[in-house]
Parts: sequence; C-alpha cells; structure tokens
Amino acid sequence: MLSRYLPILRWGRRYTPALFADDALAALIVTIMLIPQSLAYALIAGLPPEVGLYASMAPLLAYAVFGTSNTLAVGPVAVVSLMTASAVGRLVEAGGPDYIMAAAALALITGVMLLALGVLRLGFLANFLSHPIIAGFITASGVLIAASQMKHVLGVSAHGDTLVEIGESLGAHLGQTNPVTLAIGAGSILFLFLTRAFLQKLLHAAGLSERLAASIAKAGPLLAVIGATAIVAGFGLEAKGVAIVGDIPRGLPPVAVPDFDAALWRELAGAAFLITIIGYVESVSVAQTLAAKRRERIDLDQELVGLGASNIAAGVTGGFPVTGGFARSVVNFDAGARTPAAGAFTAAGIALAALFLTPFLYYLPQATLAATIIVAVLSLINIGAIRRTWAYSKSDFAAMMITIFGVFLFGVEVGVTAGVALSILLLLFRASKPHCAIVGQVPGTEHFRNINRHDVITSPSVAALRIDGNLFFANARFLEDKLLGLAADAPELRHIVLMCSAVNEIDASALESLEAINERLKQAGVVFHLSEVKGPVMDRLKHSHFLERLTGRVFLSQFDAMHALAPETFKLVNGAPSHQSADVLK
Amino acid sequence: MLSRYLPILRWGRRYTPALFADDALAALIVTIMLIPQSLAYALIAGLPPEVGLYASMAPLLAYAVFGTSNTLAVGPVAVVSLMTASAVGRLVEAGGPDYIMAAAALALITGVMLLALGVLRLGFLANFLSHPIIAGFITASGVLIAASQMKHVLGVSAHGDTLVEIGESLGAHLGQTNPVTLAIGAGSILFLFLTRAFLQKLLHAAGLSERLAASIAKAGPLLAVIGATAIVAGFGLEAKGVAIVGDIPRGLPPVAVPDFDAALWRELAGAAFLITIIGYVESVSVAQTLAAKRRERIDLDQELVGLGASNIAAGVTGGFPVTGGFARSVVNFDAGARTPAAGAFTAAGIALAALFLTPFLYYLPQATLAATIIVAVLSLINIGAIRRTWAYSKSDFAAMMITIFGVFLFGVEVGVTAGVALSILLLLFRASKPHCAIVGQVPGTEHFRNINRHDVITSPSVAALRIDGNLFFANARFLEDKLLGLAADAPELRHIVLMCSAVNEIDASALESLEAINERLKQAGVVFHLSEVKGPVMDRLKHSHFLERLTGRVFLSQFDAMHALAPETFKLVNGAPSHQSADVLK
Repeated sequence: MLSRYLPILRWGRRYTPALFADDALAALIVTIMLIPQSLAYALIAGLPPEVGLYASMAPLLAYAVFGTSNTLAVGPVAVVSLMTASAVGRLVEAGGPDYIMAAAALALITGVMLLALGVLRLGFLANFLSHPIIAGFITASGVLIAASQMKHVLGVSAHGDTLVEIGESLGAHLGQTNPVTLAIGAGSILFLFLTRAFLQKLLHAAGLSERLAASIAKAGPLLAVIGATAIVAGFGLEAKGVAIVGDIPRGLPPVAVPDFDAALWRELAGAAFLITIIGYVESVSVAQTLAAKRRERIDLDQELVGLGASNIAAGVTGGFPVTGGFARSVVNFDAGARTPAAGAFTAAGIALAALFLTPFLYYLPQATLAATIIVAVLSLINIGAIRRTWAYSKSDFAAMMITIFGVFLFGVEVGVTAGVALSILLLLFRASKPHCAIVGQVPGTEHFRNINRHDVITSPSVAALRIDGNLFFANARFLEDKLLGLAADAPELRHIVLMCSAVNEIDASALESLEAINERLKQAGVVFHLSEVKGPVMDRLKHSHFLERLTGRVFLSQFDAMHALAPETFKLVNGAPSHQSADVLK
Repeated sequence: MLSRYLPILRWGRRYTPALFADDALAALIVTIMLIPQSLAYALIAGLPPEVGLYASMAPLLAYAVFGTSNTLAVGPVAVVSLMTASAVGRLVEAGGPDYIMAAAALALITGVMLLALGVLRLGFLANFLSHPIIAGFITASGVLIAASQMKHVLGVSAHGDTLVEIGESLGAHLGQTNPVTLAIGAGSILFLFLTRAFLQKLLHAAGLSERLAASIAKAGPLLAVIGATAIVAGFGLEAKGVAIVGDIPRGLPPVAVPDFDAALWRELAGAAFLITIIGYVESVSVAQTLAAKRRERIDLDQELVGLGASNIAAGVTGGFPVTGGFARSVVNFDAGARTPAAGAFTAAGIALAALFLTPFLYYLPQATLAATIIVAVLSLINIGAIRRTWAYSKSDFAAMMITIFGVFLFGVEVGVTAGVALSILLLLFRASKPHCAIVGQVPGTEHFRNINRHDVITSPSVAALRIDGNLFFANARFLEDKLLGLAADAPELRHIVLMCSAVNEIDASALESLEAINERLKQAGVVFHLSEVKGPVMDRLKHSHFLERLTGRVFLSQFDAMHALAPETFKLVNGAPSHQSADVLK
C-alpha cells in the first residue's frame, strides 16, 4: 500500500551496482544536455538563468521518489516555460524579485493541484484534451516561442504575448539590430542545425557506435554554448553591445516557501490549472511511449502524484513549473536509464554545475541561448499532424485550427482554454447523440440489422430501435425524442421494441426517461417492449418499479420479440427459431 | 424553411372556428389561474405585482408565434422567480426602479441566450443536467420558496438567500408576528389545502363533469384571493397592520429596452445562463409530456427560439424571466387547448385584467398571496423521487443530495452550479472509461463472450479485447493503457485482437492512439489485429496510413481472427467455420 504512493520502495530495494552504472551513464548524458536547456528555458520564462538550474535539481529528486516512469526526465520544458511567462508576466512586473517569487508560487500551486488530482484519482480529466487540440497547441506554442526569442538573436528589446504583438514589436525595433549579436545568434543557429543534421553521421562514419554518436550529437547545444562563450570572452564582445548571461549566483537553491499572497495566488490558479493539464498530458504521453517499448507500465494516477511532488519541490526551492520533457526523456531512455534513480543522479550533476560551473558561463551570449531554443522548438512544429488531421477528419481539423489561431492571436492561455472548452463541448455533443438504428430482420435469420444499411424485413405496426451505448442522463432526452418521434411519425404503429444488446448501464435519469416514454406511449396507444437486456442491467431494473409498469414485455432476443408481436411478418424461412420465444419476467 | 422558425405559419393557415372555440375556453380557465399566480410570482421575485401581470402578456404572444408546443403555458414560474430574486437581489437594492430594470434586463439577457442556443442548435446542452440533479434542485427550491414566504404569513420582515439565513431571520423576528396577518395567512393555507383536496370531489358529486370539476377546483387560489380581499376591505384590517398589495398601476405594460449597463449585465450573465438552462429543461419536460399524449412533436431547438422570444418580449415590456410552467400547462391541456393561439388568448385575458381588475386587488392581503405560493410550491417537493433514486442508484442519490444541500446551505445559484459541475464531471468520468471486455470463444460456436461472465476458451498467446463504444479522444488514453497493460502483464502474449463490433466511429485522437498502440506493441514484440470493423469505420481508416502500418491484420469476424492466430485452440467442434477465414484488406 505504501509502495503504491512511494514507488521508490519497490525499485529501491532491488537496486544493484549494474543498475547504478547504467543510470549514472544516462544521467551524465542528460546533464550535459540539461545545462544549456535549463538556462534557456529560464530565459523563455523571463527568469534569471540560475532559476533554470534550481528547477533542475529538487524536482528531479522528488520525481525519483514518487514517479513511476523509469526513464522520464523531469525539469523545465519549453511550452510550460512559455505558459509561466504568460501567466506571471500578466500579473507582476518582469525582472524583479516579485516575479521570481510569483513563478515559484505558480509551481507550488501547480504541484498542489497535480497532487490533489492524483490523490483523488482524477487522472481521467487529462483525457479531455483531444490529440488534435494538443498537437495544435504545441505547434502554435513552438512558433510563438521561436518568435519571442528572435529579439535576443537580433539584440533588440521587444515584447508581446501574441504573434501579432511580437511581430509588431520586433518590426518597430528592427532598426536597432546589433550586428555583432546577430552574427553570434545566426551563427549559433547555423551551427546547431548543422550538428543536428550531420554530426551524428560524421561521428558514426568516424567509427563511433551509432548510439554513442547519437548521444554526442545531442551535446551540440553545449558545444555551441562553450564556443560562443569563448568567442565573446576572447574578443571582449560584451563591449560591442552583445547581451551576456553575466553573474550567475553560485550554489544550491534556497529552500523557502513563497510568501503567501491570497490575491496573487487566486489569479495564478487559473494558469496553474492549465499548466497542470498540459504538463500532465505531455509528460504522460512521453512516459507511456517509453514504458511501452520495454513492456513496462506507468500508473496514470501516481504520475500525478510524482509530477505534483516535483512541482512542489520546484516551488519551495526557488524554481518554476516543471514537467516531463520529450527530448530529454528520449535521450535518457536511449542512454540506458533503468530506474528513476537516473533522474536523481542528473540532479546531482546539475548541483555540481551550479556549484562549480557558473563562473564559466559569465560571457555566455543570450543570442546563443536563444538560438538553442529556436532550433529546439522548431521540432515542436508538427506540420505532418496538421496534414494528417485534415485528411482524416474535418471536425478535428477545425478544432485544431481554432486552438492554433487562438494561441497566435490571443496568446497561449486563451488558445488552450478555447481548445479545452471546445473539447468538452464536442464531448457533450457526442454523448447527447448516441448511435442508434431502426432495425429489421435479415431474411431467413434471427439477426436484426440497421434498415438503412441492409435489406431487411420490417412491419408497419412494430418498430425496433437498437441503441448502441449506455443509457444515461446525457442521452436520456435524445431517447425520449427518438422514441416518441417514432410514435408521432407513424400513426399505424402499435408496438415499439427497444433493443438493449449494447446497453451496459441505465442510470436514474435514463430510467426516469424510460418510465416517461412508457407512460407517454401508453397514452398514445403504443405498447413499449425491451429486448436483449443484459443480466446486470436487468438486476438493477428490478430495484425500480419500471418492470411492473412496463406496458409490454421484456424479450430474451429481438427475434423473439418480433416473432411474438408480428408473427406473420417475422418468421424463419427454415422453420421455427432455434431457441423458443420466452420473456424472462412477465 | 421560414415556417421552421415561425411555427405560427404552419398552424395559423389551418386555423378554424372550432379550434378557436377550444383555445378560447382553455385560455379563460388559464387566465383565472394565472391572475393570482402572476401576482404571487412577482412577490417571490421581489417585484411589484404589476410586473407579474406584464410578464404574463407579451411573452405569451411571442411564444404563440415562435413556440412549437400546442399546450405549453408560458409565463412567470416559481423556481425562475426565485432565481431572479437571488440574482438581482445580490446586485441591486430591492424595491426601487433599478431593481425592476435589472429584472427586465435579466429577462432580456436570458432571452438572447436562449435564442442564440436555438439558432446555433445547441439544445443538446440542456441534457447535461441529470434528472436526479433537476429533481433535487426543484425540491430544494420549493422548500426555499416556502420558507421565504413565511414572513408574509407571519407579517414580519425577514431576509436571506439560504435556508439557514431565512430561518435565523424568521426566528429573530418571530416576536413581532402580527396575529391578524397570521390568521389570514393560516386561514388561506387551510382553505387552499381543503379546496385542493375536496372541492373537485364535491363538485363532481354535485353532478358536474369530472373535467369541469377539476378545472373549477383550480380556481381555488382565485376564490381565496377574492374572499381574503373582501374580508380585509370589509373589516378594514389594513389598519390592524395587515400588509396589502395596494395600488397596482392600471394599463398595459410599458415598451422599453432596459438601460444598458455593461458592468451590471456582465454580472447578470451567469445567472441568466443558469435560468436559461433550468427554464429550458423544465419547459421542455412539460411540453414533451403533453405533446406525447396526443402524438404531437415539439422541436427541441425551436423551443429555445420560442422561449428566447418570450424572454426578450418580457425584457422589453417591463417583465422578468419566464418559462413554460408545469401546473398551468397541464390545466391548459386538460381544458382543451389545441394550438399556441390559446396562449395568445390568455395574454388578452391578462390584458383585460390589467386594464379593469387591478382596483379590486387593492385590499388583497400579501399573506394570502404568500399562502397560494406555499401551497403551490409544496407540490414541487418530491420525496418520492428522492426515495426512488436512493433505491435505484447510490451515485445518482449522492449527486441529488449535493444539489439539495447546496441550495439549502449556499443558495439557489451555488446549488445548481454545483449540480451542473457534478453532472459534467460524471460525464467526463464515464466517457473516459468505456465498457470493455476480454473475450473468449463460447465452446462449439463462433460466438465470443466476456471471460468474466461466461465459460469460454482462451489462448495464452492471443488476447482479444472487445470495446463497447466509439473510440474518441475521451477514451483514447484508456484504450492505450488497457492494451499496453495487457502486453505488460502477460510476457507470453504474441497477438492482441481489438474487436470493434460496437465501434461506429474512430476520431483523430483515437486513430493516433491506435497508431501509437500498434507501434509500441511492435516494439514489445506483440502483433496488433482488428476484427469486425464496420464498413463506414473501415472507409475512414483508409484515409489514413494506419492500415498500412498495422503489424497484424483486419479480420472479418472474431472467430476468423482467433482461428487464424491460434488454430489449435480455436476450432468449431462441429467442423469448419461457416464462412471462410478472410481478411478484407491485406
């Protein structure tokens, strides 16, 4: 029981030196990747670089204790960093201690929400973002992030939460472009594209194993950072107006609960909820993909607890919201991580960097950090998904486009809120119209099929409706409308049979609707019958008065029903039905 | 086309003197019932009595033009009046012209919302109040209204939006009870109960037809009003402190659009939405019940237009929110109304009353009006529904209780909001866990059934999952978790077959999940197959790359699949399968 909420108890007691060796190697490679990423994502969030490092320590330790994925790499990620910038930037002046405090508070609130959803086992809530809406949101966020980083590459100041604002702001400041900064930024982008495209192949050709070559190629951003830092320091380019990272405070993160500010926290809650949902969905998708490759399982509800603990840890150690990142997790998996301990070792690696490496990052140009972001987020832009969705489903495509243009025109929060609202609206709409079919007999058989799709036998005095789903409040009114409509449209109708072969549950609302239908049909002179009611549904119905009041009967099979109600019309060509007509109750 | 939005064009051109005679008689009886009701419901809403009359004229005319029910009696009703009092009372000081203006604005906003939902054909949104939640809400509102009217019966002043507040306020003022008022109030209640219980039987025994006797018995409130007014006037009881209705301005309603106040209207919008939903659900339930009795139909989307037009009419003629009332509609039906024209004639009756009758209502004691309300709303309290829900479904019962205590403890708006939120949460939860079953072969047949319910044949290397519902975003993750879990839990598994006999649609999210499942199972060494895919679903799948990438096959039947994948295990006892193993695509 305890190990359900503390998965470390399960894998921890089976930990071996061999597992340690694998986890430590994976952690080394992920650390090399995470150092520039953590600085860059702090930049997206509008936070000082050390906050990115802080968010890459305690949260990883917390996930190692509470998480269920062996390979998920938790930490700052691009989309959540953008959402942080948008949420905090709306409420607090950028650049001051209040901003840093608010970002930590946002992480804490997000963590508490995730934890609460996990304890209440409400992980299913994350299902209500449809894939096209998520894909649209991620793609649009990628474009928005890339656009927002252009100011660092150009060396100008620009602001804005939407694509239009950013574009206008960049356009207005374009004349102030710093040519040296632009050279460094554009050079970094070019270098990163080239390493990405060719380094792995080159190293492999040079005799390295394919996996090692791939892992080293992931160090492209680190190489860019080292090279650019050396160039700026060597040529004294900060004097030419190149913005540099500057002093990063050395040391481990401060442990402190963010000051409580009721008004601010209430305003942050909405953004925290969106980060909760988006972060969880992203993280779980990655974790499931990787777990399946090794036939491992993750626990969807416990993942909420794990990510909740991570964000709470981020909140109380001066960090900002974190989640499981796609690219780093894949590297962690490929590098051979075997248990969540790999994450803890990564945290140790970042701690060493925070203690000893920060002075060497003084001359790191912001343009190079921005370049690593731009190259990284371009891979978020998924044109293929847009094309595939268009080909497969126009309504899904429409939802995707609303989300994308919501993000572009109104910002990340409006975009994802519109997407969620649209998803729920779609769900309500679907749930209110279950699939159903008027059925008739396939000649010479006991089978009944949709009259619109098959050549079947029907009777003018008996109508049979098959309902393909559970009967519950969302479709109860639909059922009333459908069945009463049948009676209203065909004055010669004398019997209606509701075929319940696909009904696994009838809730109190649907029961009341069935009672109302029975009563109304009775007054209209139509007898109401059921057929093929499943055992558990029948047991529940016996707890009500419905069966006593039912004007008609409950038939074991649809054939029995039609044979009994219109014997001349419904008969087997080859003699009697194989099981005798029998109604189970009355 | 035009007659779809203007149903009057349909029935109007077939109108005959015989229909007129029927409609006019029904209108006369409803008018007699509506005069005291309209005054009383204005009292509930905290409005002057003439506003109740105004709300009983133009809205009825509008519904006659746009509505689709032949017998629905639109006008002020108890629950919506309570919601009006709660919404407007929270924002505006009671008793002044601002309050009256805000109530009209509320009607206008409600009308525009109803109209918008109707034009957008979003009537399905009303399905998301489950019956137990509606029943709980109506019952709790009935109690709350009865409690709120006790002050008029006692002749004291008391306030409060919740049962607790009203109780405390009444308790504090109990000492100031006016004995004469109490005598009139209690006497009226007694008289109303007696006429309700016995008048119909007495009249019937005296030789009147049962229907006529029932109709006259409905005039009980009018008799109480006439009697009490005569007593107060005759004995000069207003000098003894009995609160009377006093001057009611004579004449027809003023036509004017309520002054636009952006801040106020924004605050009213939430309440208007709740009134929209509650009013619509109530009205449609009544209209459907009555229509079914005569095998007529109502158009659920056009009803939104009809009620929207009614509320807009109320808003621009100094009224307050209206909807179809249960009791009056039943009387209208029983009295023989044949077309919506009966409502228009009722409006004419009320107009005559407003022009000529109001001076006679000067001495009408408020205690008697309150008595008519109390007796009327006690019939809203539905203990039977609570008991039945408890017997049938504990989860539905829980939702009902949350709604009831929400209304009692936090007021009508919180109660219904909690009910709606709970309904949607329940819906999301249900949608995320579709019914599914691992199936095995019923020995000697081609049938496959749930292994937990039937004695069936299975294979250790092949698992077959039947999913009983459409595959879409809400359950896509569940499907991934379920199928990957099958593979993770059984290392000897080599094939998984997804049986799609109940799948009528696969949306883009579910398609992506199927692709992910296929890919992940492939990496785990498990082959993924489908069986019994319906024609239209197959057509859609051909628009994607899924079928090309599928590691396994698409089988026509589940038996074909199992026979092909584990021929030794799955065979018919009596020879070969009746139709040959064939996969449709590859």
